[in-house]
Amino acid sequence: MGDPTSSVLDVEDLATRVTAAIDGFVEAKVQVLERISPDLTSMAAALTELLSGGKRLRPAFCWWGWRAAGGNNSDAALIAASSLELLQASALIHDDVIDASDTRRGMPSVHRRFQAQHHSAHWHGSAKSFGMAAAILLGDACLAWVDEMYSESGLSGAVLDRGRPYLNLMKTEVMAGQFLDVLEQARGGGSVERALRVARYKSAKYTIERPLHLGGALAGAGSETLEAFTAYGLPLGEAFQLRDDILGIFGDPAETGKPAGDDLREGKRTVLIATAIDNATKEQANTINASLGNPHLRDAQITQLRDIIAATGSLAQAEALIEQRTTEALGALDRAPIDPAARATLADLATAATTRRS
Amino acid sequence: MGDPTSSVLDVEDLATRVTAAIDGFVEAKVQVLERISPDLTSMAAALTELLSGGKRLRPAFCWWGWRAAGGNNSDAALIAASSLELLQASALIHDDVIDASDTRRGMPSVHRRFQAQHHSAHWHGSAKSFGMAAAILLGDACLAWVDEMYSESGLSGAVLDRGRPYLNLMKTEVMAGQFLDVLEQARGGGSVERALRVARYKSAKYTIERPLHLGGALAGAGSETLEAFTAYGLPLGEAFQLRDDILGIFGDPAETGKPAGDDLREGKRTVLIATAIDNATKEQANTINASLGNPHLRDAQITQLRDIIAATGSLAQAEALIEQRTTEALGALDRAPIDPAARATLADLATAATTRRS
Repeated sequence: MGDPTSSVLDVEDLATRVTAAIDGFVEAKVQVLERISPDLTSMAAALTELLSGGKRLRPAFCWWGWRAAGGNNSDAALIAASSLELLQASALIHDDVIDASDTRRGMPSVHRRFQAQHHSAHWHGSAKSFGMAAAILLGDACLAWVDEMYSESGLSGAVLDRGRPYLNLMKTEVMAGQFLDVLEQARGGGSVERALRVARYKSAKYTIERPLHLGGALAGAGSETLEAFTAYGLPLGEAFQLRDDILGIFGDPAETGKPAGDDLREGKRTVLIATAIDNATKEQANTINASLGNPHLRDAQITQLRDIIAATGSLAQAEALIEQRTTEALGALDRAPIDPAARATLADLATAATTRRS
Repeated sequence: MGDPTSSVLDVEDLATRVTAAIDGFVEAKVQVLERISPDLTSMAAALTELLSGGKRLRPAFCWWGWRAAGGNNSDAALIAASSLELLQASALIHDDVIDASDTRRGMPSVHRRFQAQHHSAHWHGSAKSFGMAAAILLGDACLAWVDEMYSESGLSGAVLDRGRPYLNLMKTEVMAGQFLDVLEQARGGGSVERALRVARYKSAKYTIERPLHLGGALAGAGSETLEAFTAYGLPLGEAFQLRDDILGIFGDPAETGKPAGDDLREGKRTVLIATAIDNATKEQANTINASLGNPHLRDAQITQLRDIIAATGSLAQAEALIEQRTTEALGALDRAPIDPAARATLADLATAATTRRS
């Protein structure tokens, strides 16, 4: 690792390096927690487990933003990019509390894990409340640690200062996007337009555009490069989220690590759902609205909803839109004034992010 | 503001300046949120309201740590110190979710505020879940903004880097302390020793020692000064928390902004409660254990518990311990190698923090 003369690494090598950076940080944190009290061991274990998984997408886009703008093969930049995985961990832990999700990455979600600990220890009070409390606090800790990992990455103060505005914006935007998402589900009957706005903040900017901006800014990219990242990142992010919408309804549990039709039970007002309601007959729309958000949906009902979404042409429409947006992103990438090797990898990432099965 | 020739300001002037710094930051954030979507107005309003109140204790200790270590009357340092109020806002919002508290500073807590919004708008799903989700996300935003306000305070990068390890430690410790607190309440029957450990992390370090360290480190304090801050801060923090324990049970709702006996209904395993159980007869201990954490305690039951805590001598013991720890803190302050004017103000703050009625 850290050979400054090596050329651009491939995507799998990068994931290995990101994992090593995260492991190093998490191990140090586990020691800090256990020094405070052995009672924090359960928190440390939950942290270690959650951070061992994941697609490391945000670190990857941040890293390739750095490389695209001329950054070298620096371990310090890699650590700074990897700090985004802590932000993602925090968002997932809190998101699972908010959505009352039972599983994450095929394992019990953090709040359920602590709930089970409370239950099996026969402690006082509500096991559910205990699980929620522990998950809120662990999510807070992960969020607090983003800046710690970033600031202690080894990049110089002047370089870190260039990236901070983007890191900060990213955090504000993802929380705003999540709130708008919660609001959409509460208000119900949202438009495609409103669903697209949620997707833009919760996914396109958070997962792709801002990580690229952060990496680019760290490398000293000018406005032309940053704008090219937007031109690539926003349509790609929309395609990425549409793929997510499809997987949340049609995905294979063995690959997604989430129960079949999970988004339907959770009542997610995705772009795909909003499109289906727009396209549906009155009767079909009534069926969707009556079932959406029912946590006890049976398999037959899920199949019925899937059939409606396909029959209305909404699934095909979403697939076509994914292709169109991905093409748009790749076109912007072709025109971007960036390092050619990074360009090739960003093209690969675009395909991976939009054709994934989990 | 910002007259570099003025001498040390008094405590009230400081609170006014901290409030101005926070108002400035919050106004800018409100604009960012409203640019993202007018649907974020409710979030912005909750933020503005919560941050308009509070004792500003952590910024005050941070500021006087800075002054004590020779820092000048700098607006930039004041802004950096004020960022701690965002950390406190985040902790309070999440703490109120965790404790299911209805009020904060005499107003509805953030989650109850959003719950009421959901309820009166007749939205879909659970109003309670919506309130919780909004509060989790607003608390996250406040936590994310700590570093933003700190980094953009106007202090130089080199100065900010000196403070960051303390800011980071402070965040880890307060979350660890809160988790240990939740764990104590779940396990029940905790010892005085375990309650003291919670108090140390949740209050003494978080409210006093680390803010002083942060301010001192920003001003370039050496280890002798930082150790003096610990010698002053930890006993004072313990006294501060004991005062909190007393107010949580015996406080006047008109002054605390919390219902009478709130800690009893929430089942807080404070040092005062642990001491009372230690001192109690078996019958008294049974009464405490049976009532503690019952959210529906009637006024007569609260009076009965108060009487037991007083009759066992635990209240007097807590008052004596507050006096002893405050004296210890003031002794350490006398010996500290710090600016004399800051010493005088830190002595005043010690008295204010331990004799307060809210």
